[in-house]
Amino acid sequence: MANAPVTVTITGAAGNIGYSLLFRIAEGAIFGPDTPVNLRLLEIPPAMNAAKGVAMELADSAFETLYDVDIFDNADAAFEGTNLALLVGAMPRKKGMERADLIEANGGIFGPQGKAINDHAADDVKIVVVGNPANTNALIAAHAAPDVPNERFTAMMRLDHTRAISQLAEKVGARNEEIKKMVIWGNHSADQYPDISYATVAGKPAVDLVDDAWLTDEFRPRVANRGAEIIEVRGASSAASAASGAIAQSRDWVRGTAEGDFTTIGLYSDGTHYGVPEGIVFGFPGVAKDGKWEVVDGLEISAATQAGIDKNVAALQEEYEIIKSLGIA
Amino acid sequence: MANAPVTVTITGAAGNIGYSLLFRIAEGAIFGPDTPVNLRLLEIPPAMNAAKGVAMELADSAFETLYDVDIFDNADAAFEGTNLALLVGAMPRKKGMERADLIEANGGIFGPQGKAINDHAADDVKIVVVGNPANTNALIAAHAAPDVPNERFTAMMRLDHTRAISQLAEKVGARNEEIKKMVIWGNHSADQYPDISYATVAGKPAVDLVDDAWLTDEFRPRVANRGAEIIEVRGASSAASAASGAIAQSRDWVRGTAEGDFTTIGLYSDGTHYGVPEGIVFGFPGVAKDGKWEVVDGLEISAATQAGIDKNVAALQEEYEIIKSLGIA
Repeated sequence: MANAPVTVTITGAAGNIGYSLLFRIAEGAIFGPDTPVNLRLLEIPPAMNAAKGVAMELADSAFETLYDVDIFDNADAAFEGTNLALLVGAMPRKKGMERADLIEANGGIFGPQGKAINDHAADDVKIVVVGNPANTNALIAAHAAPDVPNERFTAMMRLDHTRAISQLAEKVGARNEEIKKMVIWGNHSADQYPDISYATVAGKPAVDLVDDAWLTDEFRPRVANRGAEIIEVRGASSAASAASGAIAQSRDWVRGTAEGDFTTIGLYSDGTHYGVPEGIVFGFPGVAKDGKWEVVDGLEISAATQAGIDKNVAALQEEYEIIKSLGIA
Repeated sequence: MANAPVTVTITGAAGNIGYSLLFRIAEGAIFGPDTPVNLRLLEIPPAMNAAKGVAMELADSAFETLYDVDIFDNADAAFEGTNLALLVGAMPRKKGMERADLIEANGGIFGPQGKAINDHAADDVKIVVVGNPANTNALIAAHAAPDVPNERFTAMMRLDHTRAISQLAEKVGARNEEIKKMVIWGNHSADQYPDISYATVAGKPAVDLVDDAWLTDEFRPRVANRGAEIIEVRGASSAASAASGAIAQSRDWVRGTAEGDFTTIGLYSDGTHYGVPEGIVFGFPGVAKDGKWEVVDGLEISAATQAGIDKNVAALQEEYEIIKSLGIA
């Protein structure tokens, strides 16, 4: 192996998304064929046997790019030396649960994990939060990790991004790779604002190829509610495609985004981009270079896009107020 | 994309192994980053919605190496133009089921699929049978496809092979990639004979590093019964590691095995290797070059290995007799 091994911690490792993630990471999907990985699997105690079984299957696959696999039910140990943390495990919303209750329950997961990352992870640690509500969970973890720069806590908006690319590609009869500069503003929730204003299809402006009615009545609601559509059709929630999003977001972060394109990144807002206030984790157009995300500034914001941004700012600020009132932030 | 697209058909596509396979194939795990794939998913009618959901998640992932995804409940259509057929879906053994009943039930699956491959697949079609009993299912499909050379119907022995590598690596404290020339003789079943006689660990003979008691009491039974161990620990059968085996076997077939090594391939016996009679699908040491498998001849066979081979020949010939008596062959 040409490169030194990297350490990746995955939480909720024995769950469905974890099961879809681990083997692809072990095979080199994030770091490429020349970088071995050590995997650290974090699970809750009742799932430790399942995690052990997953570790056995990883061993059985005899990947050349996989060195060690260890399993933990303790966050401090699980994040020891971690270069990349994929926070997948979360408390799902149960029937009748209020948003504040959901956020409080997740505070009990992402707070301690943020602290463990703060105290034990490698200096260059990168964090991708997959577990929902992803943006606010990322914020909770960031608040618990004062020594880790806030911009390292990203929320996975990449699945929304690729869902939008796929819907547009299908509509206009293009290949996915012909579509550039899609963006999903805001929150990884049904509030999100999928925006083709800057997108090109084989170099042509996407807005010239579709009409407003399709964007309003089909594209935006379908992308924003795709998770529910998958559950309805497949009879199970998105797992492998969520893994795809986490892998693509991580890979771009590590290896850089393609020249001449941007992607969507759920990033801690420092208050200097597009009027989004400081202190929330927000989906922005972004590029990754030399291991750092940067927001793409200077895009012209239409009234419709502004309304979409505003709606998401309001929703995420409300969640921020909840975590403040809970004493989490 | 530098290369023309290839067409891959997966049966049982909405099952657990299929779900672990498809996204990795779409990402380039078999054909590499420069070859787009078209996926054709075959499922039984009750699983068509699940298959549709999987196809939606594949679309949502917006893989650049994935062109089209189509779903079918009809084998003739599913194998149209197929270059690589991964036959995953099979009838599992139910409690109290006799071997003849199991084979007859699978004859009803792999016979028609073999015929559909014969009539509709591309001239260069390669077939990897994953569904158990894999060796005899491959034989059933081969008999139904008189126009396709028998050696194209391979049984997946690669998971047994990597399980053996992993166990040996762990025992001697080596990395997987330091272990060469492992072989699993015979049947993908508990009868299989995992054999380290020719294996090297970082260039040293493996037989010098472990003792016979470990090989007899731990290594061979553990490798041969690993599937049951996974079920016991994980609470579910091997899915992602089975996908790893199918991918590795296919990738080597397409891109060639590494110089200076061999692997295990479940291949139609033409009666000219190691005294294995013609007409059964048997695990041999093999190399792939220019898209073709070749058995590695000339290995010295110890009395223990010969006994292992004989046991597997007997078991597979018994299954061959069953399919003959059922009129399948």
